[in-house]
Amino acid sequence: MTIYMYVLAYKMNGKFWALTDKEKENVNSNIIHFINNYRKNLISIKYYKSIRHDNDILIWSASDTPINLEGLKEGINSAIGIYGKSEYSMFSLYEHSPYVNATNSLEDTLKTEPKKYFVVYPMSKDREWYLINYEERKKILAGHIGTARSDKESPGIISYTTYSFGLGDQEFVVLYELDDLAAWSHVTEKLREVMARKWIINEAPIFVGIYNGDKLVI
Amino acid sequence: MTIYMYVLAYKMNGKFWALTDKEKENVNSNIIHFINNYRKNLISIKYYKSIRHDNDILIWSASDTPINLEGLKEGINSAIGIYGKSEYSMFSLYEHSPYVNATNSLEDTLKTEPKKYFVVYPMSKDREWYLINYEERKKILAGHIGTARSDKESPGIISYTTYSFGLGDQEFVVLYELDDLAAWSHVTEKLREVMARKWIINEAPIFVGIYNGDKLVI
Amino acid sequence: MTIYMYVLAYKMNGKFWALTDKEKENVNSNIIHFINNYRKNLISIKYYKSIRHDNDILIWSASDTPINLEGLKEGINSAIGIYGKSEYSMFSLYEHSPYVNATNSLEDTLKTEPKKYFVVYPMSKDREWYLINYEERKKILAGHIGTARSDKESPGIISYTTYSFGLGDQEFVVLYELDDLAAWSHVTEKLREVMARKWIINEAPIFVGIYNGDKLVI
Amino acid sequence: MTIYMYVLAYKMNGKFWALTDKEKENVNSNIIHFINNYRKNLISIKYYKSIRHDNDILIWSASDTPINLEGLKEGINSAIGIYGKSEYSMFSLYEHSPYVNATNSLEDTLKTEPKKYFVVYPMSKDREWYLINYEERKKILAGHIGTARSDKESPGIISYTTYSFGLGDQEFVVLYELDDLAAWSHVTEKLREVMARKWIINEAPIFVGIYNGDKLVI
Amino acid sequence: MTIYMYVLAYKMNGKFWALTDKEKENVNSNIIHFINNYRKNLISIKYYKSIRHDNDILIWSASDTPINLEGLKEGINSAIGIYGKSEYSMFSLYEHSPYVNATNSLEDTLKTEPKKYFVVYPMSKDREWYLINYEERKKILAGHIGTARSDKESPGIISYTTYSFGLGDQEFVVLYELDDLAAWSHVTEKLREVMARKWIINEAPIFVGIYNGDKLVI
Repeated sequence: MTIYMYVLAYKMNGKFWALTDKEKENVNSNIIHFINNYRKNLISIKYYKSIRHDNDILIWSASDTPINLEGLKEGINSAIGIYGKSEYSMFSLYEHSPYVNATNSLEDTLKTEPKKYFVVYPMSKDREWYLINYEERKKILAGHIGTARSDKESPGIISYTTYSFGLGDQEFVVLYELDDLAAWSHVTEKLREVMARKWIINEAPIFVGIYNGDKLVI
Repeated sequence: MTIYMYVLAYKMNGKFWALTDKEKENVNSNIIHFINNYRKNLISIKYYKSIRHDNDILIWSASDTPINLEGLKEGINSAIGIYGKSEYSMFSLYEHSPYVNATNSLEDTLKTEPKKYFVVYPMSKDREWYLINYEERKKILAGHIGTARSDKESPGIISYTTYSFGLGDQEFVVLYELDDLAAWSHVTEKLREVMARKWIINEAPIFVGIYNGDKLVI
Repeated sequence: MTIYMYVLAYKMNGKFWALTDKEKENVNSNIIHFINNYRKNLISIKYYKSIRHDNDILIWSASDTPINLEGLKEGINSAIGIYGKSEYSMFSLYEHSPYVNATNSLEDTLKTEPKKYFVVYPMSKDREWYLINYEERKKILAGHIGTARSDKESPGIISYTTYSFGLGDQEFVVLYELDDLAAWSHVTEKLREVMARKWIINEAPIFVGIYNGDKLVI
Repeated sequence: MTIYMYVLAYKMNGKFWALTDKEKENVNSNIIHFINNYRKNLISIKYYKSIRHDNDILIWSASDTPINLEGLKEGINSAIGIYGKSEYSMFSLYEHSPYVNATNSLEDTLKTEPKKYFVVYPMSKDREWYLINYEERKKILAGHIGTARSDKESPGIISYTTYSFGLGDQEFVVLYELDDLAAWSHVTEKLREVMARKWIINEAPIFVGIYNGDKLVI
Repeated sequence: MTIYMYVLAYKMNGKFWALTDKEKENVNSNIIHFINNYRKNLISIKYYKSIRHDNDILIWSASDTPINLEGLKEGINSAIGIYGKSEYSMFSLYEHSPYVNATNSLEDTLKTEPKKYFVVYPMSKDREWYLINYEERKKILAGHIGTARSDKESPGIISYTTYSFGLGDQEFVVLYELDDLAAWSHVTEKLREVMARKWIINEAPIFVGIYNGDKLVI
């Protein structure tokens, strides 16, 4: 099965923030209600509060049918209506990495309970990377993966690498689920010293989601 | 006959998404109705839902008369009115490639049924490319085209290269019709390793359209 | 006489596009009416529909008095009112090129009938260009001008080079009047191979105007 | 204890500026009232008028619980409602620098009275920096810190380096409290000559806050 | 005395341009009235119409008290209310250049009558500049200043170099008062050939103001 992944970020506007608590709860309920009804069209869907000022809700979904992800966008747009708008999206393909041997089912990894935090960002490599021969690249990435996995703060961080070649403005969309943001930040900093970073040309914007159950904007 | 090509992307706003289903259908009908009446002024026109958050409708049209493409913009603007706005456009010239021998009629290739997916993006090359002599460039591109065509996942992908020199902010607008997004993404990734990529300096934004008949925003 | 040149681009909004045809005609008349009354303050003024999505009207004017160009902006702003807004402008000085001998009156060249198409864009050169000695630069540009003029598709293209040093965000504003967009695009592409392009660092956005008499947004 | 830091910038809109003085005071009171009630969820919170045109209020907060910082955003959004919106944010981790020996409690440094001015900006280093070995980097930074500390205008400037790896679009968020903006600017200029600057690739936007008690937008 | 400088750019919106002449005059009066009352808090204030499309008013002020400049922003915001908004600002320090001997009082130079035109833009130099030793830099700048001063079109151009290190997104804010825009543009173009330009990395946006007495937007 082919798995397409889709991340959406929404920002609520002043008309929303000026509502009473009760009215805000209604908007929140509309969003959750739509998602629950729509869930059957998806492999998985998780949602988070966003720490950034330029969006308030992060939605992470997967489906084997791209139009179902587009339909998710339309449905959430309609649930939010005049109270906000989509501000970012990333569309990608979730497949086994050619650099790593894996036996797990990709679909199952998505159907877990959300961890406390969700991190996602786009990533691209410069043109030189792709002119290095495959075996050499494999070796360089093995160094990267080794450092990442062996770090004492890595346990508890689940990472997903997805492919966005020809599907979006980045080559990769990388996603993480984790329970400790400080540990995550330490590992990220430590990986700055890894050789493989030499070819990375973009890793922004970085979105940090906080899992808060069904309370997205209240 | 000279063929001009024009891609338009529209985003609907919160006022639209807050409408009832019936009202949304009316807006959708206005757009389709205008397009059907206007079709006689064009060589071809196809339309798609867009997977991106920053636009919802993609329109791909061709005409031998540039003002008819401008008129298309005005007409769709009017059909959408206060419910959205144009967010992107690309204007280019569709001609036989100087690097490839071809005998087909360009006009006929446009008059086919839409495939499941439509991909389009702007593309430019750096200054060094144009200082390489023509025969050398021809050889480099032959390598690119050979890799693209021989890939086992390429069949079913129709590509259109159009020229935007002096007409828009990019040198080329490249367009694809295809039925399998995952296969398309695999081919795109594989082409990263081709020599000709060394001179490519921009390939964003990438727009992915999903063909959904006359239902554009419903 | 010193000639200042000013290009303005306006985009109409959803409130405009939702008007009836009759109401749109009134807005269009207001714009044309203002321009006709204001023409006495200018050396020349021509106007076009714009092919781009991000603006609908292009206005190209010249005056020996900068405040008259600013007054043009205010007047058109007022004629358009709540139905649109200015989205781009370029202010420059129209003078004889130091690289070309010319005997014509610059003022007269502006007072011609509009051709079918108008193309304008900002242009800058990198720092290295200006460190080359003047005679060498003159030779490089002579090659560029020779290629441009000798091309079989060049006849019918009138070009204007204007100077924006210290007046705007670009060094040059280059403008063209022409009747055949495909020929124009071919010449532009051919000039990509000219040595002088090595130092060009920006040529966007490119605006293409279509002359449509007094019908600007109808 | 892990300390997360969060800077928010808000811009008030025309609807706000058109209010009477009395009405503006009410909006100002709502913001201060919310902050005072919310203070118990935070380690510290300070607020400033902003000198920039693109935002009017700067809020600097710290908490050991990220969701409390997100809640701060929601609360201020609600207090401001239709009269403005968040325009920037930076989220980071406040920890002892690995390059400096320190014995003070980070928490205590935050609980001081605001100085007259607050300066904050994002900062990132290029890829080459992280490929230099740790001891060499330590030596380079020691030079930077030495120059900064020994400057005769440095006393009175308190600096905070925080870490944003994987948490935001920058690697560091650097913050300063100071009483003399001219002295601060002189020190900043002098540090341009320090070797460590060679690897810095971004230091914008720079936000300057002015402490004005509880009067934020009046 | 320390002199802080502050440039503000405002754009009026469609609601303003749709007003009657009389109503526009009232808005204009509100702005001028506020400025005249506020002048006592400043060292100097001058104002101009702006030639750019993206702003209509330029305000150039100086004060020894930063909060008085912030108060200027708030006051003009309030005078304009729903009819426009601030679109740009630059905050800097006006001091004697370390490269030039000067004996004049900086304060006095500001208290002159406005010339016909005002030009202002941000400027930054690349990292390499600051690694050159001070004496060498002094020599390079002397060449620049010599060329600028000796040009036959330079008389009548007054220049102000101000320092924005750590205060804004640029290193310098450079300002000019002049009576002849064509002469100014010629001098600017000629300075492109000066060695010192090799290290300049940004000089945009360039704002050109036209002095029109108290008529700012009428």
